Amino acid sequence: MQVTDTEWSQTEQNIAQAAFDKAYNREINALIREINEKASVISQIEDIWGLHDYLSARRHEIDGKYDYRYSVLIFVFARLLKEGWLRLDELEGLAADKLKKVTALSRM
Amino acid sequence: MQVTDTEWSQTEQNIAQAAFDKAYNREINALIREINEKASVISQIEDIWGLHDYLSARRHEIDGKYDYRYSVLIFVFARLLKEGWLRLDELEGLAADKLKKVTALSRM
Repeated sequence: MQVTDTEWSQTEQNIAQAAFDKAYNREINALIREINEKASVISQIEDIWGLHDYLSARRHEIDGKYDYRYSVLIFVFARLLKEGWLRLDELEGLAADKLKKVTALSRM
Repeated sequence: MQVTDTEWSQTEQNIAQAAFDKAYNREINALIREINEKASVISQIEDIWGLHDYLSARRHEIDGKYDYRYSVLIFVFARLLKEGWLRLDELEGLAADKLKKVTALSRM
């Protein structure tokens, strides 16, 4: 299911970039709120190291997830859909075969 | 300047343990206050990753610093003194040669 950048029209690229950014900003804003909450109740050293472990895991996860290469974008969008950071209607305008693949993968 | 555990009397061991714990608690409490402050102003993703980097560094530093082995304790106390987490009078009761070494090393 390899999809190279030559198969993404300029319009599709614009739609993809906007959707990608939207999902990223949503997830980051949720993370910021979450860290504010977690940090506000820190009172012990275990809480500090717990926060550190949590940040290590989330950073690793987010760094790996938001990979804007056209060759993997179908998989990225499928995951973002599945996790609720993106809605299918925000990908409207992509070719039908891409939407079909994204939808199918997001259900796996 | 190797000092093994056989050279620490029971009284000295009690004093050392109490001083060690006191310094550790001071530093940890300072860290907790600091993290509460840093976390309260987080509003961007850069702040989150900055906090993560800071916690990684502090955890590594603290894990390495608080090494309660009698063979290295003179060096540990010298560092804690130098950094202000411990006062010399809190080591009162240790043998004079130990206090002298701690004091000398803390000035390096």
